[in-house]
Amino acid sequence: MFDRIDHVGIVVADIDSALAVYGETFGMELVHREVREDLGLEIALLAVGESHVELLVPLSEDSVIAGAGHGLHHLAYGVPDIDAALAQLGERGVELIDSVPKSGVRSSWIAFVHPHATGGVLTELVEAAEE
Amino acid sequence: MFDRIDHVGIVVADIDSALAVYGETFGMELVHREVREDLGLEIALLAVGESHVELLVPLSEDSVIAGAGHGLHHLAYGVPDIDAALAQLGERGVELIDSVPKSGVRSSWIAFVHPHATGGVLTELVEAAEE
Repeated sequence: MFDRIDHVGIVVADIDSALAVYGETFGMELVHREVREDLGLEIALLAVGESHVELLVPLSEDSVIAGAGHGLHHLAYGVPDIDAALAQLGERGVELIDSVPKSGVRSSWIAFVHPHATGGVLTELVEAAEE
Repeated sequence: MFDRIDHVGIVVADIDSALAVYGETFGMELVHREVREDLGLEIALLAVGESHVELLVPLSEDSVIAGAGHGLHHLAYGVPDIDAALAQLGERGVELIDSVPKSGVRSSWIAFVHPHATGGVLTELVEAAEE
């Protein structure tokens, strides 16, 4: 069902000091950076193998990650067809946060699975935009 | 420096119910299972792309993960040469938990970087055993 780990989401306090660690010290390539005003987030994606580290910075008290502690936040898997994956998970009785995909970074489609269903891990499915 | 995400470590309460989710529902292949009495851990590795989900169950109150909450625990990167990677990180002033590699699952060599250095993420380096 899952092709790969698409990304690991990490909440950080400050984007510049996080980019200094993940980009400069660890040598990961910064491949995307985006502000999502609607979610109250700044997002940076750094490449590692077929996956990414996704740095997340809350921009306001209304941010969707306001109150989340710093550190590991969620785990996202790449799927070839997010509608098919959600249908399969639904049939298998998995509790979903999003039963319909929504817009993610870089024109992807995303949906979240409830942590209740995964041993406490906020889990995301990602269908990448067509190249 | 890092080839790939080697694995994401997840602490779970019960290995059988976690394998039902990650193995059966999500369809990941169980590729390894190991009890490390010295660490007070049961470990299961499930394959996803070039990475793994590593399920961790504490076996006693002396476990190295006793007291860790359920859910995302650490993020591990695959490196081709762990001694070289540790030397590079040391030169760059990164705070290490292990300056010398220790024995990991499946005859790998591992070392942990301090969460202080990575925005609050317990970070592991893994050099896989030669095939």
